[in-house]
Amino acid sequence: MRDVFIIGVGQTPVGELWDQGLRELGAAAIHDALEDARLERVDAVYVGNMLGGFLNGQANVATLLADAAGLLPAEAWRVEAACASGGAAVRAGALAVASGAYDVALAVGVEKMTDGAPEQVTAGLAAAADQDYEASHGLGFTALSALLMRRYMEETGQGREAFAPFAVTAHRNAAANPRAMFREPITAEAFARCPVVAAPIGVLDAAPICDGAAAVVVCSREFLGPRHRPVRIAASAVATDTIALAARDDILTLGAAARSARAAYHAAGMRPADVDLFEAHDAFTIITALSLEACGFAPRGQALRLAAEGCFAPGGKTPISTCGGLKARGHPVGASGAYQVVEAVLQLRGEAGANQVKGARHALTQSIGGHGSVAVTHVLEA
Amino acid sequence: MRDVFIIGVGQTPVGELWDQGLRELGAAAIHDALEDARLERVDAVYVGNMLGGFLNGQANVATLLADAAGLLPAEAWRVEAACASGGAAVRAGALAVASGAYDVALAVGVEKMTDGAPEQVTAGLAAAADQDYEASHGLGFTALSALLMRRYMEETGQGREAFAPFAVTAHRNAAANPRAMFREPITAEAFARCPVVAAPIGVLDAAPICDGAAAVVVCSREFLGPRHRPVRIAASAVATDTIALAARDDILTLGAAARSARAAYHAAGMRPADVDLFEAHDAFTIITALSLEACGFAPRGQALRLAAEGCFAPGGKTPISTCGGLKARGHPVGASGAYQVVEAVLQLRGEAGANQVKGARHALTQSIGGHGSVAVTHVLEA
Repeated sequence: MRDVFIIGVGQTPVGELWDQGLRELGAAAIHDALEDARLERVDAVYVGNMLGGFLNGQANVATLLADAAGLLPAEAWRVEAACASGGAAVRAGALAVASGAYDVALAVGVEKMTDGAPEQVTAGLAAAADQDYEASHGLGFTALSALLMRRYMEETGQGREAFAPFAVTAHRNAAANPRAMFREPITAEAFARCPVVAAPIGVLDAAPICDGAAAVVVCSREFLGPRHRPVRIAASAVATDTIALAARDDILTLGAAARSARAAYHAAGMRPADVDLFEAHDAFTIITALSLEACGFAPRGQALRLAAEGCFAPGGKTPISTCGGLKARGHPVGASGAYQVVEAVLQLRGEAGANQVKGARHALTQSIGGHGSVAVTHVLEA
Repeated sequence: MRDVFIIGVGQTPVGELWDQGLRELGAAAIHDALEDARLERVDAVYVGNMLGGFLNGQANVATLLADAAGLLPAEAWRVEAACASGGAAVRAGALAVASGAYDVALAVGVEKMTDGAPEQVTAGLAAAADQDYEASHGLGFTALSALLMRRYMEETGQGREAFAPFAVTAHRNAAANPRAMFREPITAEAFARCPVVAAPIGVLDAAPICDGAAAVVVCSREFLGPRHRPVRIAASAVATDTIALAARDDILTLGAAARSARAAYHAAGMRPADVDLFEAHDAFTIITALSLEACGFAPRGQALRLAAEGCFAPGGKTPISTCGGLKARGHPVGASGAYQVVEAVLQLRGEAGANQVKGARHALTQSIGGHGSVAVTHVLEA
């Protein structure tokens, strides 16, 4: 495979962006990424989006964005892997460049969730689960995560309050990210007494419903010029697990996350200890814990203990959610995987401002769809 | 780019398949394609599907199929380009193999339309158009095609009856295809007097709402063995045009279709005259005419005249819709592009039965999304 590099990144603020639709959000992120790469255009656009057809009445979103961004007649199609869609779009862009079909391409993630009423958004997210055996029986996205969390608490003997460090760190990091949705720090006490959504999950365990878009320009080694500050995609790996939780031997092992991380480490010739920062899929605090364990940053059942010791906070052994994560930067679902890559690139370029991880050379990003049924892992290298 | 070959094809019958969902349809097509390729498994699955989230409450369809087909923990994500989703999935699979990421991969198209009430299906299909500027104003999929058809009739001076050969040929070919939905031949008279859907489009101008899945196994040259009967993907090209019809300089030129065809001919080193059969996107008879003109099989405005001369019928210069096409084999939208490739492979292997195009060596397939806003064109070579 040809090596693939990231030479441009762009992102919109994340939030309830009432005055912008899929078209405006996507075009803005593409514009910024192209400007960052000092490019006028590219000939291929791969767009991660989960809910366009369901919430916005808009399929064909990749064509919409190619049109809105002035990139016609570029190749364009949409990539969907539930909440991992943005990560899968980066994977698609990397494959297109690696194949030799293009020397440069765009990968975009975009989601416009606030067009839907809350119950529509809930139904849309539940579509990531098994419709026949889970969602149609009323097991929505948060409910399934609540089952995972309850089981984790039972097995580890930890209470809900032990998950606080993930949310506290995310909000603390988001406070310094001008594009984050929630820029107010929270305390462990606020976390403990927040309203319950689906017990034991409280509102501060969960990422918000929001809008946003992020884009990256990927290219071949041959395309690199002196004007670029390239970040290499040292590894890109996707794996899957059963779509229904009940079909798994052990619901507390995220098999797809573990396998895609293992494949990524192998491809990059790295171990977890070599990772300077980890952009985790912290859609719920329980998923953060399971993803940390799947990626080798904590032994099974030990993620909360290590979090309490500060391992994943700024200055810790493996800082996570360095720009606020899904929890506090926000989780426009089909875009989040692309935001993770954008933020990791800023870190590796030394452009992450107050959230900069000093001397960061290797970043891991992991985007998870469903309840671990699909995972996309990237290793990025300065 | 590495050369990519097709070594296995599978397809379910097309129809109103009340006893099968996305999972069963997709797994059946995958099973048949793997058996045809004499393979037990593959490590990557790219799934074209348009309406899963909207009509079936099921996103994450690629993971669902990887799970249902026993392919976990294979890489899996969904590809969507409206009605060209199946073609784009084949493109994704070809890129994955061309990149060197895999030596063998699956591309699948699947759609389950009969889960939706007719008005839901209509709304789902309208999502391929521009939601802000077309669909939300009541311009659905058939209505937009009707505008194109009316304009074509106005410019060429032809009446609706001149479109009859496309529908008659499709139904005639479907009669000999055991997997086709409509196996009854129709007459030009029946075409002329059929009920109107959206004037001038009648029910026999339009492809049906239906269910189905098709799959192809793609591999590298290194992977080929003596047991395989490979068909080479000589070209694979995607192009886009404005998503809204009103934004085009000339609505009777399908720019994306023309550009992707031109790119495909260039990559394959071929001209239209070298094509032995053409699997056209005959969702509406007007789209057949415009696609034929975009691909160089008829000068502008001449497709109906050439059709009347028998150019596109069996035994003609460029036979189209050789297994019934979208019109009569059926158009499970996200699957149709994959069906086209499966049928072209059967032709190039000499396995198309009563519909066999004698001595076929080169086939063109073209899958169109929206009203020509995205087009995926493949050249296949025996």
